[in-house]
Amino acid sequence: MTQSHILTLSCPDRPGIVHAVTGILFRHGGNIRSSRQFEDPETGLFFLRIVFATAAGGDSIRAEMAATAAQFDMDWRLVPADRRMRVLILVSKFDHCLGYLLYQQRIGELPMEIVGIASNHPRDALRVAIPDDIPFHHLPITPDTKPAQEAQIKALVEDSGAELVVLARYMQILSDDLAGFLAGRCINIHHSFLPSFKGARPYHQAHKRGVKMIGATAHYVTADLDEGPIIHQATEPVTHADTAESLVRKGRDIESHVLGRAVAWHVEHRVLANGSKTVVFGD
Amino acid sequence: MTQSHILTLSCPDRPGIVHAVTGILFRHGGNIRSSRQFEDPETGLFFLRIVFATAAGGDSIRAEMAATAAQFDMDWRLVPADRRMRVLILVSKFDHCLGYLLYQQRIGELPMEIVGIASNHPRDALRVAIPDDIPFHHLPITPDTKPAQEAQIKALVEDSGAELVVLARYMQILSDDLAGFLAGRCINIHHSFLPSFKGARPYHQAHKRGVKMIGATAHYVTADLDEGPIIHQATEPVTHADTAESLVRKGRDIESHVLGRAVAWHVEHRVLANGSKTVVFGD
Amino acid sequence: MTQSHILTLSCPDRPGIVHAVTGILFRHGGNIRSSRQFEDPETGLFFLRIVFATAAGGDSIRAEMAATAAQFDMDWRLVPADRRMRVLILVSKFDHCLGYLLYQQRIGELPMEIVGIASNHPRDALRVAIPDDIPFHHLPITPDTKPAQEAQIKALVEDSGAELVVLARYMQILSDDLAGFLAGRCINIHHSFLPSFKGARPYHQAHKRGVKMIGATAHYVTADLDEGPIIHQATEPVTHADTAESLVRKGRDIESHVLGRAVAWHVEHRVLANGSKTVVFGD
Amino acid sequence: MTQSHILTLSCPDRPGIVHAVTGILFRHGGNIRSSRQFEDPETGLFFLRIVFATAAGGDSIRAEMAATAAQFDMDWRLVPADRRMRVLILVSKFDHCLGYLLYQQRIGELPMEIVGIASNHPRDALRVAIPDDIPFHHLPITPDTKPAQEAQIKALVEDSGAELVVLARYMQILSDDLAGFLAGRCINIHHSFLPSFKGARPYHQAHKRGVKMIGATAHYVTADLDEGPIIHQATEPVTHADTAESLVRKGRDIESHVLGRAVAWHVEHRVLANGSKTVVFGD
Repeated sequence: MTQSHILTLSCPDRPGIVHAVTGILFRHGGNIRSSRQFEDPETGLFFLRIVFATAAGGDSIRAEMAATAAQFDMDWRLVPADRRMRVLILVSKFDHCLGYLLYQQRIGELPMEIVGIASNHPRDALRVAIPDDIPFHHLPITPDTKPAQEAQIKALVEDSGAELVVLARYMQILSDDLAGFLAGRCINIHHSFLPSFKGARPYHQAHKRGVKMIGATAHYVTADLDEGPIIHQATEPVTHADTAESLVRKGRDIESHVLGRAVAWHVEHRVLANGSKTVVFGD
Repeated sequence: MTQSHILTLSCPDRPGIVHAVTGILFRHGGNIRSSRQFEDPETGLFFLRIVFATAAGGDSIRAEMAATAAQFDMDWRLVPADRRMRVLILVSKFDHCLGYLLYQQRIGELPMEIVGIASNHPRDALRVAIPDDIPFHHLPITPDTKPAQEAQIKALVEDSGAELVVLARYMQILSDDLAGFLAGRCINIHHSFLPSFKGARPYHQAHKRGVKMIGATAHYVTADLDEGPIIHQATEPVTHADTAESLVRKGRDIESHVLGRAVAWHVEHRVLANGSKTVVFGD
Repeated sequence: MTQSHILTLSCPDRPGIVHAVTGILFRHGGNIRSSRQFEDPETGLFFLRIVFATAAGGDSIRAEMAATAAQFDMDWRLVPADRRMRVLILVSKFDHCLGYLLYQQRIGELPMEIVGIASNHPRDALRVAIPDDIPFHHLPITPDTKPAQEAQIKALVEDSGAELVVLARYMQILSDDLAGFLAGRCINIHHSFLPSFKGARPYHQAHKRGVKMIGATAHYVTADLDEGPIIHQATEPVTHADTAESLVRKGRDIESHVLGRAVAWHVEHRVLANGSKTVVFGD
Repeated sequence: MTQSHILTLSCPDRPGIVHAVTGILFRHGGNIRSSRQFEDPETGLFFLRIVFATAAGGDSIRAEMAATAAQFDMDWRLVPADRRMRVLILVSKFDHCLGYLLYQQRIGELPMEIVGIASNHPRDALRVAIPDDIPFHHLPITPDTKPAQEAQIKALVEDSGAELVVLARYMQILSDDLAGFLAGRCINIHHSFLPSFKGARPYHQAHKRGVKMIGATAHYVTADLDEGPIIHQATEPVTHADTAESLVRKGRDIESHVLGRAVAWHVEHRVLANGSKTVVFGD
């Protein structure tokens, strides 16, 4: 019985990488379903994502890959394609992104397992119905309790085995410590077209500046606020007749989709880190 | 014989404005072809643009409008719809925007008269063919000669009767003095989605930041660089595979169109100033 | 105490309409909040939508409007701005559009009252949670029972006082009789960029044809299938790598938003009929 | 001294293709600059485009590729990356697409050699300035002279060695004979979002139908009018206020860019035929 696997890797670019890797797959009877690669002329790095099916066991491939990976100095990962990533979602009062993620997950479009939802507000502050089988955690926060609350978040991540934390309009600024703890496994949605309008109330900033488009940005969280590697962005035209409130309203759909696409790409192992940037082998 | 006119005005909002203005038009046999208005809830200002046709003379309408304008404290303008605005275009070496404006003008889509093209580079540095009936002015500039060169630009504006100056990728920063001289009648195209990536080499800034969309912004020039009222913006998706050079390439079309739309709207009296913002009654 | 009203009208275009109407509003102390108009040069029809606030009663304005309307042969309507239209939603098994409408309504973005949801499938066939305070009607249908089922829909419309029926991916073709009964008050979402790919399985048609963009169309239902007046359309790029299934998936968001905008515009009285076309005074 | 090459191929999908091909490149010291592939699950076909640099001669690679190609039943092509495709452009009176192609070519964005421009109208019917070093052919056509005129086109293609013929708003319908002669090497721009509004005057059809978006489609020419494989499409929103004329105007930019992208992709060997569809390894 064949099984599908996803192989991702990055390494310094040099001749022979694809030949070596496809050789391993070929020797294991692998049938390549899709393959995407990128050579960054600036960093000299090579990035590869291959989806393949084989009757051979993952361990056998893994063993041969390890040798090749050492030879080419690869950062690599091989996962069964049907393995669902464990995801924790943090949210505040604005729950449109949460609702969108829940629905997409329910209809099978987000191949992930939601291991919990945490909010600094109580469950009944949300308008979205949270399925009973998803644990909800009310983690209130005040300036004084911030370190304790963040410790709770850390514990939640570890206890739930969450591999990805999604800040779905979680309106709290993470401490450097928590940001560092979550490095590379935490996606935030910022409600502006970064790097425009960093920080608070970006739609109000946008309205004040009189821009003619608004946008949203999904990015990995780093200690440097709103500066993390960008995964996805989208924009929409607005006019002089828009108020700050109508920008907020129009922005909801953009935010939901931008975050939804970014999360989907991450859990499908389509996003590879490239320093302060990302390589996205989108669908 | 009827003639079409364009009436634009702004004033503090209060009941009766439209009734009063349409009353004047009605008494002069005016037939309204299109009308757009906007009430800014923040500034309390009212904006109106009416296109109407009448057999009555413009002077008679103008006289009656003057009284009403005084009553409502209006900033207003009445121009024949077929009057072509006089436009001076400044350009450096990158001439794609110039080429686009020239073509649009030639096929009748930009109702304006190009009274001159000026560049800090000689004519043969441009790849676009400049029609023989449009005066070309080579105005070289060095740090030392900047005041003198800007004096030449001022003289050119005055001698040519230019009502609008278009900076079509004119890669020089105007002095505060020249920016002030051209206030409200000078449109610049900035090759980024402002307020992101102000200043020099925005595509390189964008590439370095790893954004997933690029854009362009047409705005009125003010002394505060890249901070003038925005008229139009557009964006386009890019990917990790784009280099700074490919961003420059992809940006050319966006820049050309964004500037083309902004200029078209300005010369058709569709753009009204609203403090540091614009009201755009687009087509 | 002032109250906001929405006035919409259409009539043969001729001088004096706006002056007459704004005169009525002025005499009633009306303060115009927004006004949009359109003169169709082909049909010679004039369309107007005014939002205004006044302390005067609606009946008094209505009385004076009636006289003016008769004079100008107007088709007109005056409604309190805070009056919520009564809406019935029909759905089959695909419930993403329903979920989107429910959420938008809940957060206050769709000023309407959902008086019922009806489906040819039972409630538990839906993945969206339907609020308990919205009546759900299971109206199964077979070729034999179609007339009876449509009679149930008619009764539902009449009993609930529904002013608008939304076909939110209701996968049944209405009979001419029911389509006629609902004329002008029924919006459908078709999952293609009409007039491309009318009829069944449009994403599969699109995939087969190899198009590079897909779209969705919200339109009023008429007896002529997929030919009713179009309210809104949107598109999204796709590639050779998309399967019919991935088009279905990508289309969900487009459908939801296109329908959501069309419904919002309808219930805010922003859509006026213009023969087989619509005039949309969008936000 | 290294030279860049572009290798494109398609063949029935089966394990080992990429390994075999990259093996050839590896043995010739090839450094892969970019690689794109696609496995069509419906047709079972595999498509590959590799850009690589090597100091080895093309003939040596070609010889080894021939054996592998036979083994995998490949349809393949290997060309030097700096080889410029020879292109003949046909145009009628509307010359905005021609102007765009000429400018893009001049600034180095379209790596092709324009070996001639032919029109059924005389040179002075065009508003675009045609460079003196590009031969212009006036090939008038009437119903009676159509076969003779098409024979002239065929002769032009053969004499000029044109590898691609671009119909840049060439408003003549090709005979089945000429369409067959040009099969796979002729790109047309149709001014609608196909399959909507085939045939003549698509903007007028679109205006009559009351659509809310317009578009353009670049496709390979086949005997079946407007049914050829689609390479690229784009759309733009329009409103009730647009006339057929304003659709024509707005469409010009869309047409120019859609055709420009399609031609760029073709001459860079980024478009592979897949039955009645295309595989586009876009930039």
